[in-house]
Order: sequence, then C-alpha cells, then structure tokens
Amino acid sequence: MQELTVKVPAEKAGEYRIEIGTDILGSVWAKIESQFGSVGKFVITDANVAKAGHLDKLFSGRDIPIYVISPGESSKNMNTLVSIIEAMENAYLARDTVVIALGGGVVGDIAGFAAAVFKRGVKVVQIPTTTLAQADSAIGGKTGVDSSLSKNAFGAFWHPSAVYIDVATLKTLDDRQYRAGLVESVKHALVADEKFFEFLESNLDAILRRQADILEQVAYQNCRIKAQVVEADPTEKNRRRMLNYGHTIGHAIEWGSGFELLHGEAVAIGIIAAGMIEIEMGLGDSKRLERVRKVLGELGVPVKKPANISKSILIDIIRRDKKSINKWPRFVLIDRIGNVHRREGQWAVEVKQDMVEKVLGKL
Amino acid sequence: MQELTVKVPAEKAGEYRIEIGTDILGSVWAKIESQFGSVGKFVITDANVAKAGHLDKLFSGRDIPIYVISPGESSKNMNTLVSIIEAMENAYLARDTVVIALGGGVVGDIAGFAAAVFKRGVKVVQIPTTTLAQADSAIGGKTGVDSSLSKNAFGAFWHPSAVYIDVATLKTLDDRQYRAGLVESVKHALVADEKFFEFLESNLDAILRRQADILEQVAYQNCRIKAQVVEADPTEKNRRRMLNYGHTIGHAIEWGSGFELLHGEAVAIGIIAAGMIEIEMGLGDSKRLERVRKVLGELGVPVKKPANISKSILIDIIRRDKKSINKWPRFVLIDRIGNVHRREGQWAVEVKQDMVEKVLGKL
Repeated sequence: MQELTVKVPAEKAGEYRIEIGTDILGSVWAKIESQFGSVGKFVITDANVAKAGHLDKLFSGRDIPIYVISPGESSKNMNTLVSIIEAMENAYLARDTVVIALGGGVVGDIAGFAAAVFKRGVKVVQIPTTTLAQADSAIGGKTGVDSSLSKNAFGAFWHPSAVYIDVATLKTLDDRQYRAGLVESVKHALVADEKFFEFLESNLDAILRRQADILEQVAYQNCRIKAQVVEADPTEKNRRRMLNYGHTIGHAIEWGSGFELLHGEAVAIGIIAAGMIEIEMGLGDSKRLERVRKVLGELGVPVKKPANISKSILIDIIRRDKKSINKWPRFVLIDRIGNVHRREGQWAVEVKQDMVEKVLGKL
Repeated sequence: MQELTVKVPAEKAGEYRIEIGTDILGSVWAKIESQFGSVGKFVITDANVAKAGHLDKLFSGRDIPIYVISPGESSKNMNTLVSIIEAMENAYLARDTVVIALGGGVVGDIAGFAAAVFKRGVKVVQIPTTTLAQADSAIGGKTGVDSSLSKNAFGAFWHPSAVYIDVATLKTLDDRQYRAGLVESVKHALVADEKFFEFLESNLDAILRRQADILEQVAYQNCRIKAQVVEADPTEKNRRRMLNYGHTIGHAIEWGSGFELLHGEAVAIGIIAAGMIEIEMGLGDSKRLERVRKVLGELGVPVKKPANISKSILIDIIRRDKKSINKWPRFVLIDRIGNVHRREGQWAVEVKQDMVEKVLGKL
C-alpha cells in the first residue's frame, strides 16, 4: 500500500465591476473591448431582446457570432445548452473567449452556464435587460439549466467578469414581466434593509412609471445588498441562503404551474407563504404580512396559490429542492422587515412538513 | 452612472489522498464512509466493470443507487449526462452527495462532470480500474463529455475528494485496453522523468504480465509525476500543458478514427508525431525516436496514422482543439527524454501548420 497527497492550490480572490446607468448600452461594447482586448466574443440573447432593438444598440454594426434562444424558461434546458456550445465550436472559439449574456434571467443563467462548461470554463459578461435579472440573477455567479424534474438541476457557480445594467432597457419590457421582476427587490428589502422597503413603498408609482433616476437607485440598492451577501458566502454554505426567502415554496409553485407563472410571480406567492409560516411560528404578525401583501398587491403580482396546483405535488417538488437534506429543505424566515431570523447561527431554519402543508392549505 | 465592485473571495487550498494497493477494493467503502459519513452516495460505473465483479467487491451487499453506462467513448456525451443527473434527482440526492466513479477514463470523466454540475457541485471519489485512468484521468480534476464536434467540448475542472487505485482490477482488463492505457505512463516518463522511462524499458515484461508489485510502482510514479504538475498549475494556464504531449495530434487521430482507435493508441501515434516534429525542429534525433518507438512497439500499440484518416480532416480537428488560439494550437515538445522544451517560459510552443502537415504526410 502506497499513499500520496495531491495539493489543490487556493484560487486567488477576484472582483468584478457593476456599472449602472441609463442609455449606456451603446457604449458598452467599447468598454468590453478595452477590458478584454481582441479575444473571441460570443453573444447569447433571446428573440424578444433582439426585437426590442437592444442587440443593435450593443453591436452598432459589428459582426459578432451570436446565438438567439426562444424567450422563456422552457428554453432553459440541456438541448439549448448543447446547441449553444456547438455554435461556439463552429465559430472556432478558444479558451480566451468572452461570452456576453444580453437578456433576462433565462439568458443570463444559460449563458453563464455555457461559459462555465465550454472547454472547462471561459469568461462571461452579464448585461441584464429585465427587472429580474438586473435585481438578482446577473450578479452572484449562480448559473444553470433545468432538467425535466427540477429547476437548475444542472449548474455551476461561475462569476461574471463584468456586469452592465442599463435601466433604459426596462422601458421595452412587457408589463407582466416588468412587475414580476420587481418582486426580487421586495425580497432584498425584506431580508436585508427596512429603509429600502420604505423606499419601495413610497416610490411605487415612479417605479411603475419606469422613471429612470428611481430605477437606477433601485438597481443600485439591489446590487449593493446582493453583493454584500454573496461576498460573505459565494457558494451558499449558509448566509447566502437568505436570498432564497420566498423561493423554496416559490420555486415549487413556479414548477408546479408548468411555468404558467413567471418566476417573480411564484416568488411573490412564496413570500406570502413565508409570512404565514412566520405567523405560525410566532416570528411575525398579520399587520406585517398585510404591509408586504399591500406592496406586492400594488405591483399587481399574484399573492395566492393557483387552485389547480395541488398541495401534494408541491410537497414532492419541495422534497427535490437543491437545498434539501434528507428530502426536506430548511426555510428562510424573517423576524422583522430587514432582518432574517437565525437559529444557532443558521440562516435557514427547520420548519416541519405538516406546518408547511397547513400553510399551503390556506395559501 | 453608478458603480459597484463585487469581491469574489479566494477559494481555500485543499488536498486529496491517493491510496494505491493490490486487492484493496473490498475495504474502500468503509474508508469512504469514514471520510464522508452517512451522506447520500451514488455510484457510476460501466457494464464491463460490473461484469468483472469489481462492483460487487466495492459494495459487498450494500444497497446503493447506481448508474451503469455502456462501455466506450461513445457513451461520453450529454445524453448520458442528462440521464445520470435525472437518476440522481430521482434518488432525491442532496448537495451533500458523494459521487463514486468506478471504472475507466470515460466513467471518471463523465462522473466527475456530473458531480461538478449536479446542483452546482457535489463531491466525487475516483476509483479508476484501467491503466489509462489509474495513470492519468482519475487525478488532476479534468472532467467532461464530448460534443458531436470535439472531445471534452463540455467540461469543468473538478478535483476528486479521494482516489483509490487497486491494481488488482487491471487483471480483468482486456489486453488491448490494458496496453493502450500504458501509453500515458510512457508519456509521463518522456515529459518528466528519464529514470521512469528506463524503469519502463527494463520492466516491460513484468508490466505486460501484470505483476502486482511492479504495477503498484508504475501507478505510484504516474501519480507522483501528475500530482507535481497539477499542483503547480491546476487549471492549465501553462506548465500543465506538458501533459498534453502527443495529445494534440493524438486527440485528432482518435476523433478522426471515429473512436475505432482507443485514446492511448491514438496518443501513441501522437507521441511519434511529436518526435518527428522534434527532429524537424532540431530538438531530437532519430535515435531517440527509435527508442520511443521500440517501447511503444513492445506495448503493441500502433505507431502509424491509419491510412483512412485524411490529413485535411486532422487539420480541421486540430483547429478546433481546446488549446487553439486563432484556430491553431501550440504543441508540447521535448528536447531530451524527461525534459519539455520551453521557449520564453512557455511549455507549449509554436509549430507552423505546414510543418505539421508535412509530418502528418509521413506519419
């Protein structure tokens, strides 16, 4: 018997810049060129984003290989990933390639994952164009695609090398998507910043009118909150779990609806469910829940479980949750607006299955 | 315009143990249990390994979820990966799962990649059962699957958490695979250790008789050489490229043969091609090339390009190589046995396309 030990050296710390502005898309390509030089580039976007004219603004006449996916979560699968990678191979792209994700959460997740696995990893730049992606998915390095059984069953932690947020791209977003994506801002406020929650309450009209200066402030606060959490716990060992507030039940409802509901819409229902669990557990009262319900109501997102998704299906989906240990996940709860309830240092805590079933019955 | 910087913290250094022995398979499961505890486990193997009885030895009656792939490189694709991930989901496995790869290079590559992407990454233990995997693919963290256009087009660097090498598993390996896998040992000797090359020359008979004590020594030297290189450069920025000796042309021949040739057989031809390029470039002479050809000849692997693979097809495949920059890769060459030729600090150097074409014409 012989033994050897192989050392895996530490990976160096890194950092990336997020730039937030209005009508900046036309100047982003020059910035990418100056950051990365004349290496191969590959743009991934979806048909809606292309139709809205954002792609033309980004390129302004340049000839760059591109892959356009069909809009919507149903594209976020391994078939699309395989097509993307083979298109990259057909463009003879090398390991120094920079993938550029222009679009919403689906584009960002799949493009980030393509970058993570193409030839064992190339760089990615995120240019989010939806309220959801600007608030959440474009930063933090979570990438992935769905399997036929669950969301993000395939994935990797793969940080972007730069993020450009142009709030002017939100002007062309359809109303339902626009509103649904704002739910992630509400989530950030609920878990991390009461002042930001008050800002959202008082500026809802301006936000819904898509007033640029207010949208820049919202984007900045979202990025600030998310960056703080992600820096402390990039691979979600503990603290980062707080960002899953409303998501455990939310993901299950999104999946159970067959993606009839948008991610943000399902998370809104999940946030209400979390509030109901908090009341059951003595961590909150109905007054606080009503305050949350009011904001979500004004955003025009659903706050009740659709009747056609059965409790038993939701329970089965929850058991498959990525965060499940012994087939049951822990839940993120708050004890006041802006503060996550922690137990024994854990940011996600035990909630018995029968209590979740009870809440799902009333949701 | 507003800006933020997101810090990506350093990843801590790690290490993993390689244990080498004869007839140790029966005691490996207890070691895995003691290292990882009672978390979920999932075994990936192939039909040949199961048939050879190795799986029974590993399990000795335990009931563990398992996925058996068809033997051979043609299984190493995204369809198999998707089936594996969905089988893991159906077993309700969580993020604390340990994937156990029992088999050759294909099993190790695909199981390692499955571990890298399942729920954004779980642990993997490699138990290589072939000369190829024990010498090379089970250590170093390269994982991946092929696309329809090239080898390992999808992949990740994902280090194992432990490696167990039982040279007794080699006894059941079919002769052609056994011999082909030994080519990686020849490669290690050529790029890193003249004494090991002499050891191989003088012990070829014992090696081909599969004499356990000699095989343990071969395994140990392979692991020692590979570990040293991988520790210095885990993600192949430069020095690790030396392990691609014979592989750039070798991969192209393997691919161009439609996998009629085994990996090691194709690499043997690639090593001869590298030797011919070295002569063209004044880095070697025909005496050294004959010494290499003699060892490979005694292993019984091919040392000439099959006539049915055209030069132009090989050139196109080489242009798609992962290491290509501007559609042409650099080549690893040696200037004496045990020493890689470096130019300006680079471990892979420029070789003009017409010189490669000339050598392919004579190969």
